[in-house]
Amino acid sequence: MANEENQQQEAEMEKLPVVLQLRPVPAIAPVEDRFLNKFRFLKAWESSMPMDLFLTTHSQSVRALLCSGITPVTADVLRCLPSLQCIVTASAGLNHIDLTECRSRGIAIANAGGCFSENSADYAIGLLLDVLRRISAADRYVRQGLWPTKGDYPLGSRLGGKRVGIVGLGHIGSEIAKRLVAFGCRISYNSRKKKSSVAFPFYSHVRDLAANSDALILCCALTNETHHIINRDVLLALGEQGVIINVGRGALIDEKELVQCLMQGEIGGAGLDVFENEPDVPKELLVLDNVVLSPHTAVLTPEALMSLHDLLMANLEAFFSNKPLVSEVKDE
Amino acid sequence: MANEENQQQEAEMEKLPVVLQLRPVPAIAPVEDRFLNKFRFLKAWESSMPMDLFLTTHSQSVRALLCSGITPVTADVLRCLPSLQCIVTASAGLNHIDLTECRSRGIAIANAGGCFSENSADYAIGLLLDVLRRISAADRYVRQGLWPTKGDYPLGSRLGGKRVGIVGLGHIGSEIAKRLVAFGCRISYNSRKKKSSVAFPFYSHVRDLAANSDALILCCALTNETHHIINRDVLLALGEQGVIINVGRGALIDEKELVQCLMQGEIGGAGLDVFENEPDVPKELLVLDNVVLSPHTAVLTPEALMSLHDLLMANLEAFFSNKPLVSEVKDE
Repeated sequence: MANEENQQQEAEMEKLPVVLQLRPVPAIAPVEDRFLNKFRFLKAWESSMPMDLFLTTHSQSVRALLCSGITPVTADVLRCLPSLQCIVTASAGLNHIDLTECRSRGIAIANAGGCFSENSADYAIGLLLDVLRRISAADRYVRQGLWPTKGDYPLGSRLGGKRVGIVGLGHIGSEIAKRLVAFGCRISYNSRKKKSSVAFPFYSHVRDLAANSDALILCCALTNETHHIINRDVLLALGEQGVIINVGRGALIDEKELVQCLMQGEIGGAGLDVFENEPDVPKELLVLDNVVLSPHTAVLTPEALMSLHDLLMANLEAFFSNKPLVSEVKDE
Repeated sequence: MANEENQQQEAEMEKLPVVLQLRPVPAIAPVEDRFLNKFRFLKAWESSMPMDLFLTTHSQSVRALLCSGITPVTADVLRCLPSLQCIVTASAGLNHIDLTECRSRGIAIANAGGCFSENSADYAIGLLLDVLRRISAADRYVRQGLWPTKGDYPLGSRLGGKRVGIVGLGHIGSEIAKRLVAFGCRISYNSRKKKSSVAFPFYSHVRDLAANSDALILCCALTNETHHIINRDVLLALGEQGVIINVGRGALIDEKELVQCLMQGEIGGAGLDVFENEPDVPKELLVLDNVVLSPHTAVLTPEALMSLHDLLMANLEAFFSNKPLVSEVKDE
């Protein structure tokens, strides 16, 4: 009887659309049950076969692939999957996917879209307020019992009226700008190209943006072009009172130069959610009061994970219903 | 020659409008020079005379008084000053001034107006983001070197979509609301009476507001009516996930009950800029990770002090030019 039920269940499952996973997708592991009555996950890492054999074995049935932001989806992998038409990634960035191969094959890609944008924007504002108004530093001061003995804590600086330069005006940057407007900040930005739909002043060189800003917020993608986009020259242009916030990737900043500038007082302060060699943080920063250090938590909250699950599900359902993907990434 | 110049200077000064100060006004002490070519300050505390004798001696010449928020301006003082027509206070609150006596005499009062409102609002948002997203706590985690050894820090909670209850929708509360709208929060409020110009839901009882909020922000004045407005009952209504932010006055909250609720997990967290017995902070709070502690710094930045100086000056100039005061406090 139990056996019969099992067989029936298995037969039902065989009818479900197949979704390939090359490696575990941590973001969905806790809620995999939600997906299992709609899709049949084919988990490459659970097979004893070598990867290429596994892929060629299933090559005809695999039309969709679900991956995390750290699963390489190389041209070699893609060549084993001639029927693949759709990749759904649980990340905002796409630098783990061979986009050239996808483009030439017409494989559609959907990403995490704006699921994390609001969280990242909130966190960027939190870090900026914290550095300017010295919230974490003042909290340490109170916890050390210094308020009654040493008196008032030195004043921080006001956010309103500050000139804030946003590096990368995509999903996250736009959300940051929306918030900063409510705080009375003056916004300008740098990005690959000027956006015609945006009225904020545009600077084509990040050094010029820095020279005309009291604070810089980094929220662009890490690419060959943006690696160490913030070098010593840019930091000196930002100046002694200037503050830098990074919710993008650690390697956007030349970290050694940043540490030097912070220690020498060549810039005013920094709020860093990301670092070049995470989870290692330069030890010089651990004792500075003009920095706020955060363990790469800007994007994640339980609420954002829920939105992500819904979005991944919606994309897969759309694909198998021949509808447009919900968060398809189109070529620019 | 020098003597002659001095005499001439003194004669010039005698022509300046007289402004009485009962006690030093700390906010303007560093920039008193800016006032001295426009007004002659009469400093009661520098005289060897007893206060009442000093006041009656100058009773005919004193038409304006400048004070801080901790200088009592009592009915007794006011009765010694029959020519007084204007009080300019360097504070937002007026609880140090006998308003009944002023009203019956028709004495006009100007206060700090909105000089501190934006700072307070910014700081309230900073504390809220800090408590929800655990910024200070994560900063401690990184500084203690725990990220590489203990791994990811526990996720905080998203600000967007949260129901935020504002207690006191005056200058500061309105600035807070403006910012929260940009973060996608759902706002409601409690105040002495419903404001016809505001569309946010109004709760006449703060307990009901708490029961319908994920976070409460306190920014009302401390009066007999608002003393301990946040009691155990209200805290329990806010609930286990609820967060409370206080940028008003410490005694708005029954602090003993707050400490209990935080230690027992009966509320989720707190961001506190003010305390009942400042600068003493309950020692139980110093070790909790779900609180952010701040040494009463929400209102002050150098920029706000500059605005305050300008406003005090503008009020005094307006008064002596028979123009309307710039930041007159009118009866409701």
